[in-house]
Amino acid sequence: MSTRQRLRELVDAPRFQQAIIGVILINAVTLGCETSPALVAEHGTLLHAADRIALAVFTLELAARLYAHGPRFFRDPWNCFDAVIVGLALLPTSGPFAVLRALRILRALRLISAIPSMRRVVGALLGALPGMASIAALLGLILYVGSVIATKLFSAVAPEYFGDLGDSLFTLFQVMTGEAWSEVARSVMEAEPLAWIFFIGYIAVTTFTVLNLFIAVTVSAMQSQVAREHEIAEENQTTLLLAEIQQLREEVRAMHSVREQTSEN
Amino acid sequence: MSTRQRLRELVDAPRFQQAIIGVILINAVTLGCETSPALVAEHGTLLHAADRIALAVFTLELAARLYAHGPRFFRDPWNCFDAVIVGLALLPTSGPFAVLRALRILRALRLISAIPSMRRVVGALLGALPGMASIAALLGLILYVGSVIATKLFSAVAPEYFGDLGDSLFTLFQVMTGEAWSEVARSVMEAEPLAWIFFIGYIAVTTFTVLNLFIAVTVSAMQSQVAREHEIAEENQTTLLLAEIQQLREEVRAMHSVREQTSEN
Amino acid sequence: MSTRQRLRELVDAPRFQQAIIGVILINAVTLGCETSPALVAEHGTLLHAADRIALAVFTLELAARLYAHGPRFFRDPWNCFDAVIVGLALLPTSGPFAVLRALRILRALRLISAIPSMRRVVGALLGALPGMASIAALLGLILYVGSVIATKLFSAVAPEYFGDLGDSLFTLFQVMTGEAWSEVARSVMEAEPLAWIFFIGYIAVTTFTVLNLFIAVTVSAMQSQVAREHEIAEENQTTLLLAEIQQLREEVRAMHSVREQTSEN
Amino acid sequence: MSTRQRLRELVDAPRFQQAIIGVILINAVTLGCETSPALVAEHGTLLHAADRIALAVFTLELAARLYAHGPRFFRDPWNCFDAVIVGLALLPTSGPFAVLRALRILRALRLISAIPSMRRVVGALLGALPGMASIAALLGLILYVGSVIATKLFSAVAPEYFGDLGDSLFTLFQVMTGEAWSEVARSVMEAEPLAWIFFIGYIAVTTFTVLNLFIAVTVSAMQSQVAREHEIAEENQTTLLLAEIQQLREEVRAMHSVREQTSEN
Repeated sequence: MSTRQRLRELVDAPRFQQAIIGVILINAVTLGCETSPALVAEHGTLLHAADRIALAVFTLELAARLYAHGPRFFRDPWNCFDAVIVGLALLPTSGPFAVLRALRILRALRLISAIPSMRRVVGALLGALPGMASIAALLGLILYVGSVIATKLFSAVAPEYFGDLGDSLFTLFQVMTGEAWSEVARSVMEAEPLAWIFFIGYIAVTTFTVLNLFIAVTVSAMQSQVAREHEIAEENQTTLLLAEIQQLREEVRAMHSVREQTSEN
Repeated sequence: MSTRQRLRELVDAPRFQQAIIGVILINAVTLGCETSPALVAEHGTLLHAADRIALAVFTLELAARLYAHGPRFFRDPWNCFDAVIVGLALLPTSGPFAVLRALRILRALRLISAIPSMRRVVGALLGALPGMASIAALLGLILYVGSVIATKLFSAVAPEYFGDLGDSLFTLFQVMTGEAWSEVARSVMEAEPLAWIFFIGYIAVTTFTVLNLFIAVTVSAMQSQVAREHEIAEENQTTLLLAEIQQLREEVRAMHSVREQTSEN
Repeated sequence: MSTRQRLRELVDAPRFQQAIIGVILINAVTLGCETSPALVAEHGTLLHAADRIALAVFTLELAARLYAHGPRFFRDPWNCFDAVIVGLALLPTSGPFAVLRALRILRALRLISAIPSMRRVVGALLGALPGMASIAALLGLILYVGSVIATKLFSAVAPEYFGDLGDSLFTLFQVMTGEAWSEVARSVMEAEPLAWIFFIGYIAVTTFTVLNLFIAVTVSAMQSQVAREHEIAEENQTTLLLAEIQQLREEVRAMHSVREQTSEN
Repeated sequence: MSTRQRLRELVDAPRFQQAIIGVILINAVTLGCETSPALVAEHGTLLHAADRIALAVFTLELAARLYAHGPRFFRDPWNCFDAVIVGLALLPTSGPFAVLRALRILRALRLISAIPSMRRVVGALLGALPGMASIAALLGLILYVGSVIATKLFSAVAPEYFGDLGDSLFTLFQVMTGEAWSEVARSVMEAEPLAWIFFIGYIAVTTFTVLNLFIAVTVSAMQSQVAREHEIAEENQTTLLLAEIQQLREEVRAMHSVREQTSEN
């Protein structure tokens, strides 16, 4: 058995996987602790050491899996996910990349790729995305058109909400989620009493579209699941009927051969 | 081939459609840029020129499609949609029509009529409307009745929310969406402690009705889709059974003819 | 034909129904106009006269239908609904009944009983109620238990939200609808840092229960509708198979009789 | 009949159950009254006496049921539920357990275990939980990762929302429910204009996941119910076809025996 094969057996062993899950969990906790200045002041060295060790473990594990599986490693999208997450942590975290320090906790998301049931859930979630693409694009278009109109009409009277296109996009996204829309609408309506036409129209259109987005996802989830179950139920019924018909055929055949024998006699 | 036919082939060519989609996208971006005073100050002439050119392209395209397809052009509602959108842009934008300048961005909605998958999505959305008409009318009636009652009872104590019928309609629409209703209710209840009866009753009735509106749409979406799939699955099963029964019939017939021959012999 | 029969034909005629719908609509508009002090100052006499006439029409119509249909009149719940609505308007509107003046607009709800499609929608809504009774009772119980606990724990620190049992019931109903719950929770948590346990637990339990209430209603709506459609589809398939099997039976019988004849010969 | 058997008959009698439900309801009302200082001042002794008596009744009932059913008592989870609820009330309510006084109202939840239809509803709710476990775990993971990132990035600029990990968890739970998220986002964006990326990303991911959580529960509820109904409908159809085929078999067999007789003759 080559080194590569032995390594593959090692990295694919359930025990090894569980150990990695353990390291991910511990690392998630230590990164959580690092948000507390008091804990950092007291146990800072320990927390940093734990973080370094976890990162070293992840890098070694990734290198081992990469060597063990060879180029096929990158065919599994979850492996790419792991590689990106660990790769992020290896980038320098100074200067413009300072925000990456805060993103180290994304390593906790490796739990998703490490636990099969989480993998399936996320796979199912991602599988629902393509069915939503058209309606999501439509929503984006409505948001953009609404924002350009709102900026043109209301930027002078409510600059805190509709000052420029970016503000309007944010505000109308907020209105789409139904959050504090009356506050926005009332502050605009003080200066532009007819603004209710825009807001109620926008809410009606987006709510209706979001509702249908929702329904599209639900229906497609139903289709695949319920339909499959039914098919099985129906196949069972069909199997029953088929068995009955086949028995009949055999009886007919048996009768036939008996008669042939009698007529031959 | 007549000019009309050649023109029809041109305007229906996928390449021509893609070029138009390109112009719509560019125009949407330039209209978005026009919302920024800084960009207008710097590149105003360019942006306006782009807008003019886009409008000219749309007008020519529309004229070409109108000539190519003749009076049948207006039978497709999407063509009417395009004609209205482009027509809007040709109206004067001074005086009472000043708001039309802000509506030029509606041209971006031509993406819907230009991209087939968007057309289908919007068609499906519009198809869900008739099934909602009765419940929507009921909601409108509840909103109106609630507003008249609220104006009568609360216009004196909360004029900012229920000052006149228009205010009440807006406020109760807001309450229907669940937005900041406690703020409205609490400000009324300070003066009218029993107002909670009105608000909780109104919320219970409208939430329940909206919920059922939602369900009506979901169920009708299910019906058409899931039912169709099932029918196909069932037909497959039936085909299987039919084949089996027909084979049996043929066997019986074969036996019959064999016997006839033997009895003739 | 007796007077009663002729009267019955009159009140059941579509034209008569449409005329009543017209009066309901006009009355709804005049009652809406009465909310505007400016309109009342100018056209008050007219509006009141219209209201009186509408009420007279409704009373006469009700009397006519009551006479025409006799005691069976009260068997239709919609007739009882009409009788209560019109009866409300005949009560004195002074002293403790002053609020009834504001409820005159409830007459507009007679549109529901007058228009068949509205009747069906409301019938369907009411039909969904029994299936929700158990979960609604459970929600009520959770609300009550939560309110007693919240009053005990938080009445001292947040008297504006949890001052007495009534306040708590209102506040927790508000939290159940997800409205401004963070405001309530944060104001309590200033004094009682552990209050988040109560709020997050309460939100988790009620959201989950409301979600299931919702699903119960959706599922039962599906059951009746989708199932019915399927049954029809399936019956069609079965009819096809039955026809095939019966044809086979007839062939077998035909063969049999042919053979009998040949053997008799 | 032993004492135990007679006792079992007593505690399982519908009348006894109804009496206990009555005591639970009365106790729930008296505990509600105890939240009112005015009522306590006037009828305090009465209320406390009623509470003591109710507790005595519950303890005796529990003891009776425990003796009647023996160790099997604890096999029914609802009995354990009752035992915990009553046990809570017997703990001392002084010192660190003072909060338990407020939890006495939890006894009202015994209505759930005492009324069969409530039991079924709660059973159905709990039955929906396992299907949600994976998505709930995913949501928890997203919440934790988001909170660590938000604490790192925003603790300095918005300490009231993201001061420490606990604050962030609460705030992001609030954002997940869509409550006042724009207020949080706007206050952070004043100092960190790019914070909208975090908020909109977080809202998109959690809304989408919650939506799928919802759908997972709905679909599984559908599956069990609708599928069952269908199966019955289908079985009916199959029974019809089976009867037809069996009749055919019998006819074939009958023909066979007739022929055998004729050939024997």
